[in-house]
Amino acid sequence: MADEEQLAETEAEREDISYALNPQAVARIIYAVDIGDRALFLQEMSALHPADIADLLEQINAFDRRRLIELYGSDFDGDVLSELDEGLRQEVIGLLPPDVLAEAVRDLDSDDVVDLVEDLEDHEQQTILSALEAGDRIAVQQSLTYPEYSAGRLMQREVVMAPEHWNVGEAIDYLRDQEDLPEQFYHIVLVDPRLRPVGNVTLGKLMASRREVLLRDLVEDTFHVIPVTQAEADVAYAFNQYHLISAPVVDETERLVGVITIDDAMAVLDEEHEEDILRLAGVGEGSLNDRVIDTTRQRLPWLAVNLVTAILASLVIAQFEEAITQIVALAVLMPIVASMGGNAGTQSLTVAVRAIATRDLTGSNVWRFIRREVLVGLVNGIIFAIVMGIVGIAWFGGPELGYVIGAAMVINLVVAGLAGTVIPVALERVGIDPALASGAFVTTVTDVVGFFAFLGLAAVVLL
Amino acid sequence: MADEEQLAETEAEREDISYALNPQAVARIIYAVDIGDRALFLQEMSALHPADIADLLEQINAFDRRRLIELYGSDFDGDVLSELDEGLRQEVIGLLPPDVLAEAVRDLDSDDVVDLVEDLEDHEQQTILSALEAGDRIAVQQSLTYPEYSAGRLMQREVVMAPEHWNVGEAIDYLRDQEDLPEQFYHIVLVDPRLRPVGNVTLGKLMASRREVLLRDLVEDTFHVIPVTQAEADVAYAFNQYHLISAPVVDETERLVGVITIDDAMAVLDEEHEEDILRLAGVGEGSLNDRVIDTTRQRLPWLAVNLVTAILASLVIAQFEEAITQIVALAVLMPIVASMGGNAGTQSLTVAVRAIATRDLTGSNVWRFIRREVLVGLVNGIIFAIVMGIVGIAWFGGPELGYVIGAAMVINLVVAGLAGTVIPVALERVGIDPALASGAFVTTVTDVVGFFAFLGLAAVVLL
Repeated sequence: MADEEQLAETEAEREDISYALNPQAVARIIYAVDIGDRALFLQEMSALHPADIADLLEQINAFDRRRLIELYGSDFDGDVLSELDEGLRQEVIGLLPPDVLAEAVRDLDSDDVVDLVEDLEDHEQQTILSALEAGDRIAVQQSLTYPEYSAGRLMQREVVMAPEHWNVGEAIDYLRDQEDLPEQFYHIVLVDPRLRPVGNVTLGKLMASRREVLLRDLVEDTFHVIPVTQAEADVAYAFNQYHLISAPVVDETERLVGVITIDDAMAVLDEEHEEDILRLAGVGEGSLNDRVIDTTRQRLPWLAVNLVTAILASLVIAQFEEAITQIVALAVLMPIVASMGGNAGTQSLTVAVRAIATRDLTGSNVWRFIRREVLVGLVNGIIFAIVMGIVGIAWFGGPELGYVIGAAMVINLVVAGLAGTVIPVALERVGIDPALASGAFVTTVTDVVGFFAFLGLAAVVLL
Repeated sequence: MADEEQLAETEAEREDISYALNPQAVARIIYAVDIGDRALFLQEMSALHPADIADLLEQINAFDRRRLIELYGSDFDGDVLSELDEGLRQEVIGLLPPDVLAEAVRDLDSDDVVDLVEDLEDHEQQTILSALEAGDRIAVQQSLTYPEYSAGRLMQREVVMAPEHWNVGEAIDYLRDQEDLPEQFYHIVLVDPRLRPVGNVTLGKLMASRREVLLRDLVEDTFHVIPVTQAEADVAYAFNQYHLISAPVVDETERLVGVITIDDAMAVLDEEHEEDILRLAGVGEGSLNDRVIDTTRQRLPWLAVNLVTAILASLVIAQFEEAITQIVALAVLMPIVASMGGNAGTQSLTVAVRAIATRDLTGSNVWRFIRREVLVGLVNGIIFAIVMGIVGIAWFGGPELGYVIGAAMVINLVVAGLAGTVIPVALERVGIDPALASGAFVTTVTDVVGFFAFLGLAAVVLL
């Protein structure tokens, strides 16, 4: 509990920390747009990082967005497009005059252009590709041949490499002579004569070593090579697990074709988390800027699934109409058992889904985990059975109703522990994302079992 | 939907990708432990990264863990302790012989030692601190004076800095002469005469430039200075937002005191996400390795809150016992309205909690967001009202029950959209973590409103 208070405090403190984009800055910028004062506007914008400008565009409405981009004109920075939420990119690209757009994309790294164009429609893709220089265009088109969400789409093709037999002096002289080194690089990749990566040397070690030291004597202990077709989620996992800063990417012949850096991996990790959290809540892909109609469409399928499970639960209740007519208290109390089961099941399944995503739940410990969750359900079930037993007696006078709701509670919380673990594990085994589908299955089970156990026991014991 | 299929596939593909730690490797290692073959054991372990060894220790049971650490002996690597889940650290530290423990921590960087000791009890802290050399011990003790979860705890104190007036040649000569540069560093921090950081120069730029170029002409565009007391969550946000690789940390006099690198920020981001996802599901801190009793205690408070809200909902139902006795179909149908509201509310609140965490939801767009969620609730409510109206007629014969459940559905989904947005936003404003508390409030609202609207309308229309 101390931890939670601590964190709640820091959360509150956040408001004191002034980041570049705050409501006052937004107000000043919109004011400059309102009065059409371009000098004032550009002055305000100059303080903002492209990521902040993207946030700004996401936070204002479509009308202001159009006026802002008009006023921005040729000063619009291409990096803003990369930072922008995918849902808004098409709109903003459509607002940019062709020459501004061409200028904007020409400044971007090839991996950023790939990220930008992969979600666009064909004719917009063509607009952007044709704005690039021939060399860049070919690089982008090659990257687009790799599957979506693969390492090939994530990597940058600009790699700094050196033959494994070089020494420090040769490497430094080579770097000095290069005209266009990548903006950011952290390692020199050592390659064998067939261009297969064999090790990483950090620039720090390179700088600190004497010229005659061999590069191969400076390689890092941890060296991880990524196949170009590997899923980007696995790439992010490897970066997080092994604390990688950059890693070479190889094609099917093990030849070096690119490099992935930690900032790209961090962005993927962030997206993966976002996806998990939203899927667990039955929210599909989507953003704050989607229109009502799009959001409605995203939410509808999950609600439809929930309606089916709720009707299933109602069918169970309908079997006990006779009992409810005789003891109306059953109708009053029955949602409690189902609700407790649903919550306990959600607790177990969330822990399971997270542990699967972080690869902490494996064949080696899955039975231990299931046993623990069932036992937790049993213990909590007994505790709440006693509580509800007392509530039942106090509320409705007789002890029998208390026994029934208590017993149903124990049964449902044990089932919740079992369903909340077995269902996500089973879904993962058959290749279905457990974050996406577990919730509906688990609450169906806890609703059906909750109503059936409570009403069934009541029918047997009380009638 | 195409996206989801794609991702489900990659998720399934994961099983094909062999990471260092797989069930076969675990089985071979446990076999070596079983037969006590130390040579075989060390050979198997040598293929594993410390992070994999930590995962191994987390996945096996306590009995195997003890035997494994005994067999490991003096080869135990200190980095494993850093990688280990906090819940297991105390156990493992307790199993290590004092000399092995001392050796293990002496190899760690100061920020890793801080991370290790901050959660230990006093006497264990002392054991570890006394194992360190005097210089390192003082560094660790100084870091421990900063608040928990602050930049001061996260940073490493080893910084590579240079006066702002130096040129490239001077910097390179200085680096050459240094005996103990940090293991990983990516920037040289330029400082003014009062040791205040004024810019970052990447090692890549340093290598590629001629000796007479001034360092201040090579500084990066994006330069972000972090106050030593800043919450680590804000540090992680800044790294993610501005694509930082490393950032200098300053004390209250703006003097440089340390540096934070992206791998540490990535770890924090990962923990923050984990916390959000678990809190949304009503699961406190905890790990897969916690015992049944600890897990029960973590889950209990949330279930207790849920019990109170479920009883509140039951009290609403109890007001309509008369109506239920006359029309038992009301008892059959009423959970559907509450359940749909609960799900729609959870959808809205999850999107709101995420958007608050990523700072996408601000004063500038909060009203637009609330309006959208309410409209989405209205549209989905009308769609499901029509569906349930038809179901009601088909199931129970008369149209009136269909009208009632349809109207209650519209009301509850609109309320769900409203409660699911206003509640987390309000909680955040008053400094309570919305991930922690929103769920209970929102489902209370949708349960109470769902039962009240449905049963109340039924009492008015049907009786």
